[in-house]
Amino acid sequence: MKAEVTVQRWEQELEARGETTLERFRRGWARLQEVDGKAGARVVAGLADLAPDLARYLIEFAFGDVYARAGLDLRSREIGTVAMLAALANARPQLEVHLHGALNVGLSQDELVELLIQVGVYAGFPAALNALEAARKVFAERADPGG
Amino acid sequence: MKAEVTVQRWEQELEARGETTLERFRRGWARLQEVDGKAGARVVAGLADLAPDLARYLIEFAFGDVYARAGLDLRSREIGTVAMLAALANARPQLEVHLHGALNVGLSQDELVELLIQVGVYAGFPAALNALEAARKVFAERADPGG
Amino acid sequence: MKAEVTVQRWEQELEARGETTLERFRRGWARLQEVDGKAGARVVAGLADLAPDLARYLIEFAFGDVYARAGLDLRSREIGTVAMLAALANARPQLEVHLHGALNVGLSQDELVELLIQVGVYAGFPAALNALEAARKVFAERADPGG
Amino acid sequence: MKAEVTVQRWEQELEARGETTLERFRRGWARLQEVDGKAGARVVAGLADLAPDLARYLIEFAFGDVYARAGLDLRSREIGTVAMLAALANARPQLEVHLHGALNVGLSQDELVELLIQVGVYAGFPAALNALEAARKVFAERADPGG
Amino acid sequence: MKAEVTVQRWEQELEARGETTLERFRRGWARLQEVDGKAGARVVAGLADLAPDLARYLIEFAFGDVYARAGLDLRSREIGTVAMLAALANARPQLEVHLHGALNVGLSQDELVELLIQVGVYAGFPAALNALEAARKVFAERADPGG
Amino acid sequence: MKAEVTVQRWEQELEARGETTLERFRRGWARLQEVDGKAGARVVAGLADLAPDLARYLIEFAFGDVYARAGLDLRSREIGTVAMLAALANARPQLEVHLHGALNVGLSQDELVELLIQVGVYAGFPAALNALEAARKVFAERADPGG
Repeated sequence: MKAEVTVQRWEQELEARGETTLERFRRGWARLQEVDGKAGARVVAGLADLAPDLARYLIEFAFGDVYARAGLDLRSREIGTVAMLAALANARPQLEVHLHGALNVGLSQDELVELLIQVGVYAGFPAALNALEAARKVFAERADPGG
Repeated sequence: MKAEVTVQRWEQELEARGETTLERFRRGWARLQEVDGKAGARVVAGLADLAPDLARYLIEFAFGDVYARAGLDLRSREIGTVAMLAALANARPQLEVHLHGALNVGLSQDELVELLIQVGVYAGFPAALNALEAARKVFAERADPGG
Repeated sequence: MKAEVTVQRWEQELEARGETTLERFRRGWARLQEVDGKAGARVVAGLADLAPDLARYLIEFAFGDVYARAGLDLRSREIGTVAMLAALANARPQLEVHLHGALNVGLSQDELVELLIQVGVYAGFPAALNALEAARKVFAERADPGG
Repeated sequence: MKAEVTVQRWEQELEARGETTLERFRRGWARLQEVDGKAGARVVAGLADLAPDLARYLIEFAFGDVYARAGLDLRSREIGTVAMLAALANARPQLEVHLHGALNVGLSQDELVELLIQVGVYAGFPAALNALEAARKVFAERADPGG
Repeated sequence: MKAEVTVQRWEQELEARGETTLERFRRGWARLQEVDGKAGARVVAGLADLAPDLARYLIEFAFGDVYARAGLDLRSREIGTVAMLAALANARPQLEVHLHGALNVGLSQDELVELLIQVGVYAGFPAALNALEAARKVFAERADPGG
Repeated sequence: MKAEVTVQRWEQELEARGETTLERFRRGWARLQEVDGKAGARVVAGLADLAPDLARYLIEFAFGDVYARAGLDLRSREIGTVAMLAALANARPQLEVHLHGALNVGLSQDELVELLIQVGVYAGFPAALNALEAARKVFAERADPGG
């Protein structure tokens, strides 16, 4: 059966690769710091007592597996993430983290405003308006990092 | 009051610019064809009997006002739109149109698969899995345009 | 404590009223037929084998309690319901039922198209476009009831 | 091809109409003030520094194009908008603006409570409960406009 | 026709049962207190002035009809409700009430953390992260009930 | 700083554990088969050409990391997943897979109907009605596995 054949091939590849969870973790932690900077570290620290394994999965899976992939540049990844979080509109803290992330990987504030205006077309004006409030807060934090 | 002052200034700017709805429409129609190609034309044709004004707003506002703006390149705009539509997950027909659009403005199929994998992190595995089904259909249409 | 006092008062009112579930059911069934007509009856019939109690709750609660209330006219109720279902965008079958319902209580097809165009502003163009496809189907069913 | 024919006809109509963006803006600003009053003006003022063009689109498109249309009365439009924003449940600031708007165009507080109770049937009790908290705040602001 | 036959049978059953709304109310109030404790009473008290009938429907329908049903144990019901509210991610106050409820009917804090980690797989990491913040608050309230 | 200390401790733990991705994969594949059976294998096979890495992440992360955790029994996990997927309502194929999964780990059809009725209270009647349609299909597949 097709799934079994696929699974056997994957097992052989994974055995050849010999990757450990520690390697994924280290790759993810480096990527998380590169993208989200201090805002990412705060998320990790905040989960350390209550659900440390979810923080580990964020590092290992979201950043060590997905964000560390080679096939799409970081700028494009952050554009996609910011657009998603703005459209979902129930992820305000994460939207702020990734607005920082987008600025960290080279997007300008003007480009982010452009992107959030576009959110209005596909997810409605309220989603765009609320995302712009998150951007206002993040831009102010960048202007006054000690604030 | 602040809003009134802003409004007066905007009126002066708009008067100086003298832009007509016809100009917005023409700019939007050109942009829509550039981005969405035949898939966009089908959306317009499909609305022409039932709600022609919504089709006009799509052309005039979504493409003539927003998508025609200079501050963000088309590639980035399509990344944002595809990510949003995949995350919202209730916009399957529009996701297909913009997967075509993303390919039209230069994204590769591999880059789109990367983007949709990333959807899983922020909107959940089901959103990613269903978006990949849309991509499978769109990629097949590109392989066999007469199909 | 406040909740206990409120609860005691409600118990006295409910005792004085003496309403039975049968009365709510009959009131709800009449209202459901008035609003949704055959489309509502199909929903009830469809649930009768698998989850009959959910069908009863739909009749008793949604229509016998809520839709039968006096404080808002049926036309306004259907406008609200159609707008909600179009915005949620994951309730296509229910949107079709209530587009029929809205026509049944006196809204015109043109008014419904107006309402669905407005959905685009608050829930995004995809929600509006998909709701208009539902309207197209419902309007065709009205034009050809035997179809 | 159908879309091209439609587009040509629209261009002729738009040319004959000769409408400018300034006219749309003035019509929209009048409509926004009529519906949302001070709450709408605050939204515009709040965006003026960060994303003035989104505020303009709100005025020109949402109010100058859509809300100014003749085919549906303002009372019905506000019922639809309040119901949508309550159901989406991620648009609290906008829900407050349009609860004010609904009162401005003639709905009573009791009618709005009726509408929000009905939200519970289609979007779940949490959406209704949270929308009623928004209504509580808005009703208090109306009772004490200087508060 | 099928619906009419079903309706007639239900009317006979309801007549034989003779259940009153007062009975549903009493059953629901007992269930609500058993599950949600003080947090549930606060919801009821909070609605008593603005929309008392919605509070009654919550008691009569949500708890007197649905939560009082015999076919699924309370522990399983609370797992389902917490998972839904976390996934919907726009129901923070209700999520807190039902995190209390889940603890009240016997789930441990560790089990709830497990459940919320799992939310990340299906509704995305942001939904899981935000639900864990709600859990942190609820767990602190349990540790310091007078706080 | 707190995050760095946490990260160092995790690195030490992961080094001591020495877990490889192959181990996670094997654990996940076993769990996926236990829970979702053939429906899960079909998902994996379906992704193998287009996005094999997403299928691997589903096995390694969703099942090898999360579903394989010890702190919550499989029955409870499936209740949570079915409730989430029904509430999100944009995950119909995944809802079907996990309705099979819930039956595989010991829930009865009657218990699932109970759970889906409860969805109506928190996510609205449309979500419950549409989830019950999914259940109808899944129950029929169980009755006629060759169908």
